[in-house]
Amino acid sequence: MQLGMIGLGRMGANMVRRLVRHGHQCVVFDMSPNAVAELVKDNATGSSSLSDFVKKLEKPRAIWLMVPAAVVDKSIRDLLLLIEAGDTLIDGGNSYYIDDIRRSKELAQKGINYVDVGTSGGVWGLERGYCMMIGGPDEAVQRLDPVFKTLAPGVGEIPRTPGREQAAVGTSEHGYLHCGQNGAGHFVKMVHNGIEYGLMAAYAEGLGILRAANIGKQTHAADAETTPLRVPEHYQYDLNLSEIAEVWRRGSVVASWLLDLTATALLEDPALSKFAGRVSDSGEGRWTIAAAIDEAVPAPVLTTALYERFSSRGEADFQNRLLSAMRYEFGGHLEKAASERPRWP
Amino acid sequence: MQLGMIGLGRMGANMVRRLVRHGHQCVVFDMSPNAVAELVKDNATGSSSLSDFVKKLEKPRAIWLMVPAAVVDKSIRDLLLLIEAGDTLIDGGNSYYIDDIRRSKELAQKGINYVDVGTSGGVWGLERGYCMMIGGPDEAVQRLDPVFKTLAPGVGEIPRTPGREQAAVGTSEHGYLHCGQNGAGHFVKMVHNGIEYGLMAAYAEGLGILRAANIGKQTHAADAETTPLRVPEHYQYDLNLSEIAEVWRRGSVVASWLLDLTATALLEDPALSKFAGRVSDSGEGRWTIAAAIDEAVPAPVLTTALYERFSSRGEADFQNRLLSAMRYEFGGHLEKAASERPRWP
Amino acid sequence: MQLGMIGLGRMGANMVRRLVRHGHQCVVFDMSPNAVAELVKDNATGSSSLSDFVKKLEKPRAIWLMVPAAVVDKSIRDLLLLIEAGDTLIDGGNSYYIDDIRRSKELAQKGINYVDVGTSGGVWGLERGYCMMIGGPDEAVQRLDPVFKTLAPGVGEIPRTPGREQAAVGTSEHGYLHCGQNGAGHFVKMVHNGIEYGLMAAYAEGLGILRAANIGKQTHAADAETTPLRVPEHYQYDLNLSEIAEVWRRGSVVASWLLDLTATALLEDPALSKFAGRVSDSGEGRWTIAAAIDEAVPAPVLTTALYERFSSRGEADFQNRLLSAMRYEFGGHLEKAASERPRWP
Amino acid sequence: MQLGMIGLGRMGANMVRRLVRHGHQCVVFDMSPNAVAELVKDNATGSSSLSDFVKKLEKPRAIWLMVPAAVVDKSIRDLLLLIEAGDTLIDGGNSYYIDDIRRSKELAQKGINYVDVGTSGGVWGLERGYCMMIGGPDEAVQRLDPVFKTLAPGVGEIPRTPGREQAAVGTSEHGYLHCGQNGAGHFVKMVHNGIEYGLMAAYAEGLGILRAANIGKQTHAADAETTPLRVPEHYQYDLNLSEIAEVWRRGSVVASWLLDLTATALLEDPALSKFAGRVSDSGEGRWTIAAAIDEAVPAPVLTTALYERFSSRGEADFQNRLLSAMRYEFGGHLEKAASERPRWP
Repeated sequence: MQLGMIGLGRMGANMVRRLVRHGHQCVVFDMSPNAVAELVKDNATGSSSLSDFVKKLEKPRAIWLMVPAAVVDKSIRDLLLLIEAGDTLIDGGNSYYIDDIRRSKELAQKGINYVDVGTSGGVWGLERGYCMMIGGPDEAVQRLDPVFKTLAPGVGEIPRTPGREQAAVGTSEHGYLHCGQNGAGHFVKMVHNGIEYGLMAAYAEGLGILRAANIGKQTHAADAETTPLRVPEHYQYDLNLSEIAEVWRRGSVVASWLLDLTATALLEDPALSKFAGRVSDSGEGRWTIAAAIDEAVPAPVLTTALYERFSSRGEADFQNRLLSAMRYEFGGHLEKAASERPRWP
Repeated sequence: MQLGMIGLGRMGANMVRRLVRHGHQCVVFDMSPNAVAELVKDNATGSSSLSDFVKKLEKPRAIWLMVPAAVVDKSIRDLLLLIEAGDTLIDGGNSYYIDDIRRSKELAQKGINYVDVGTSGGVWGLERGYCMMIGGPDEAVQRLDPVFKTLAPGVGEIPRTPGREQAAVGTSEHGYLHCGQNGAGHFVKMVHNGIEYGLMAAYAEGLGILRAANIGKQTHAADAETTPLRVPEHYQYDLNLSEIAEVWRRGSVVASWLLDLTATALLEDPALSKFAGRVSDSGEGRWTIAAAIDEAVPAPVLTTALYERFSSRGEADFQNRLLSAMRYEFGGHLEKAASERPRWP
Repeated sequence: MQLGMIGLGRMGANMVRRLVRHGHQCVVFDMSPNAVAELVKDNATGSSSLSDFVKKLEKPRAIWLMVPAAVVDKSIRDLLLLIEAGDTLIDGGNSYYIDDIRRSKELAQKGINYVDVGTSGGVWGLERGYCMMIGGPDEAVQRLDPVFKTLAPGVGEIPRTPGREQAAVGTSEHGYLHCGQNGAGHFVKMVHNGIEYGLMAAYAEGLGILRAANIGKQTHAADAETTPLRVPEHYQYDLNLSEIAEVWRRGSVVASWLLDLTATALLEDPALSKFAGRVSDSGEGRWTIAAAIDEAVPAPVLTTALYERFSSRGEADFQNRLLSAMRYEFGGHLEKAASERPRWP
Repeated sequence: MQLGMIGLGRMGANMVRRLVRHGHQCVVFDMSPNAVAELVKDNATGSSSLSDFVKKLEKPRAIWLMVPAAVVDKSIRDLLLLIEAGDTLIDGGNSYYIDDIRRSKELAQKGINYVDVGTSGGVWGLERGYCMMIGGPDEAVQRLDPVFKTLAPGVGEIPRTPGREQAAVGTSEHGYLHCGQNGAGHFVKMVHNGIEYGLMAAYAEGLGILRAANIGKQTHAADAETTPLRVPEHYQYDLNLSEIAEVWRRGSVVASWLLDLTATALLEDPALSKFAGRVSDSGEGRWTIAAAIDEAVPAPVLTTALYERFSSRGEADFQNRLLSAMRYEFGGHLEKAASERPRWP
């Protein structure tokens, strides 16, 4: 079918390529004429302006926005001057589902359908396909099914979940799912990312513990500010993290795609020296926690994973200084104190 | 090659089956003659007593113990009366690596090799193969390579980690790895399980948040002890967890084997009604945290996941009563107080 | 000075009593005529309706609302029909500071001052005084100073903070503080309560660890689902929690008012048997976390404390069942399995 | 009574001073002759060597060790050459209670009493008295009662716990308590410190949230790696932390001695600029968690507080780099990426 795509960054461009390769017709637009020109080379239909873009689309139009969450509303405002009742806008980016609820109401008043699509797959989507979580009215979602089917990974070589043979046929096995009314797509994607933070932290912490398994070989300061290691003989292992990540990829309970990527990263550079360890968080992790708290659902693992990211960026520095200050006040403890050596031999 | 197996529970029995199918000779023993008889049907060599078992093994003997961690030491004591220098004992169960360090020293004094093998794969190992993390002296581990190769999953259809083509050939791609000296195998398996707890908790929390996404449809008590939901319209989603787990299996960042199993469990029974939610923990999660603390490696996600299991079994009950008692003392708050209704309309 | 008080629950009634005792004139109103009558006995001026209440106040009026957060807006709407420009409304309850920001803007358009006061002190305030955190325009706050001064505890016998002798004179030593513009009072009170959750959890967890210090005296199941205690000799202490809480009250680093209350509760009933351990949370703990996340400030201790409360009310049950289900899927683990006894003696 | 004190650091020296002031006779020893000389000025009896020290003590001797935990065993070995059956050794430092259990058994075989005393009070003890948690045999502890009574703060001006009037008279009100057999003193002190970590973290996190309450005034990068603040108007507060800590000291639920110290530290220097935020941990926090895990008691708040200290010292750096590496692998995310600006305006 025909789809218009606005926003030709890494994600948007590759989605167009995947659609065109499978016979769909894509009209594309981006603020950067170069980005448009690149996609034209890959058989998309280019456009020179937003109005040119809209004109090239058959009615009822289907327009997919793949732009940063912060500019979705502006994009919609601009489009509203050009589109008409019966058209469908799809937000495939990382919008907050609460914005979806608002937008869908506003657009419905103008007869325009709104579909929110949480898209996972990152830089691998062109090749592997995109996992899509979809929210919106039944009819609008149904009409876009050919697009979703092509963008999704499909069943592939991943074994069927036992019991699904008899199950009513659905799309989830193919890697896309209509989750519910507007906002449901981004809600599910939001929690997906929240889980992602937790999974990543679990691997990172575990590998951190493995990495320090040789700590008994080090000599430590023996002062009142340093806890001695009681049995250094228990921590004499020089473990190869890259090989360990690799061995877990086959047959272990912790095998996963994130582990695959971890193995890749550790094989490239076991010291991960090109990273400083300042870990960004996009909004989904935060919104997941906000939802957990509203719902009174305990989510300590996901929240802790989020806070580890904050701390990695130095956001705990003041708190830490305050802890040191309290210790100084009640015990006269000085940071890194060299002065408190034992008097008794 | 020939291997003796002691302990024919689910794990031990299936490992023997996998070995025999691939041409190894297995001599087996278990306290239960029935368990031995079952394996004899599957072409293992049975034995009627521990001494009969030892006699049937060629020297130098290779004896794999697949018994509960609590009885490994007793098993070794019994075997020590029957075996001799040059033989090798393999502990394939869930021993604490600190016990491995002790045992390997004791056995080395008698000229007996000790190899510790952390084994992941559970009930799926017969079919999928077992991921093995191995600790012990080079020579002893090397001699057992044919056994490990057969038990391991092998490369299979899992894509190669990019960059491994040029890498020196090793065994990790096949699903087994000699991690280091004695204890290293169980150390790595221990942390593997610690990570497993974290991963499981991440999925459980996330799915819990999705499940409660319809909380805005419920009416809540409006008293001073209950926090009202500010915007019920934001929580109107009836999400199908079984379908969501399924859709994430293809193309998403959170795809994993644990997710595959989650999808299976939720498809069977979305309400999970056969479970009460009292989650056991075997020792590895606890030992992982003990190691993290000894090493001063922060592991809040893994620790929190462990504590969630403790709490699921009611271990926080006293603490919770104490919190209620404090609230009563400072604010006169009564649990589930119906009395504190607003006076002002 | 003269103050009108609406809402004569435990907090409001005692605040009136404290004010009247110190020579202020209080006009009071409550939906319950009995509540009004009680206060009249204590020398407050009663009123029979909201309009009667407003009429009895001298202009510019100062009206303190001490009603549940959920009915503040309705109360203000009703009052707006009766009051006029120049009057001041004080919200002394537990409003979300975001509501303060909204209300203050709306009221400012009508020339009405709004002051938000976070009030700590609970059932003890009548005797000890109330700690007050205040937000609002300078002039309005300044005019109410006599009221704040009376309600606050005053310097009392609590030692001066070293260095304060020379400090510019302020009110914080007296137990009340103008924290900033509207919302600042409830913002500071919100975080105060967030801290309170963390402090309470720290005591509860620690006392829980002390209580279980005799766990080595118990016999435990020896099956694969139960982690054995390695050294039972290390956990043979029958500790008296009530005496321990008491001893910490004098000279220890953990002395606090919450500890005083804990000692009281444990002395009354060491088993805390009148509590079920379902711990409520009012909104402040949740809002504190929402602020932490918006600000990217890591707050894992405060958040964990909040989640412990959720879990105490059974909110983690589904997640726990899911963990058990996963364990069953990968390892065949049954909850509380009696079947997995060791086969090997 | 007469007491021998070994170890004249800040704690030991001040304890001697407090004892001498109240009429006890103290014989003192330290590796540093200057430290001994200082105490002699304060009316203690000095000694020139360990054997001189022992000779000056009347039998049965009572010898208090106030030396770093790491040298207690060496000190005892040296003393064992000089003392005899019937004497009592008191370890008043921060020993691990498991060492107490071992030592008490070894010393009992020689007829020597061992008493373990967990001591809280820090640099303030001389003036305020020391809170003491005591483990050991009844008779030995009883004999030392005059020493404990003097070192302890006594009832002082702290109000009696309601209900204690009728309670059997005990020592806990005076600030010292015989908690149980050997190890009980340090066990209770260990958990005391674990709680202390949790309390400190609660204040630090809360004040951190208050400090960032003006984050809405800042301008933030608007790129895909930075989560925008949805409503900057909600974070416009410039809060004075020093004044807030002060106001909470009177009448609030969070009043405590740690808060008093926090107020002092923030008054001295609101920026806490002399601290770098590398927070030490002595062993007690770690041992508390080890006990919690052995006991299966959930202690997420205390554990998290410990991990925050680890992280403050950079111990999470590798894990954070690994998180960044994973994000790069699946999403091409670069740390602090300036390149991922929105293409769409």
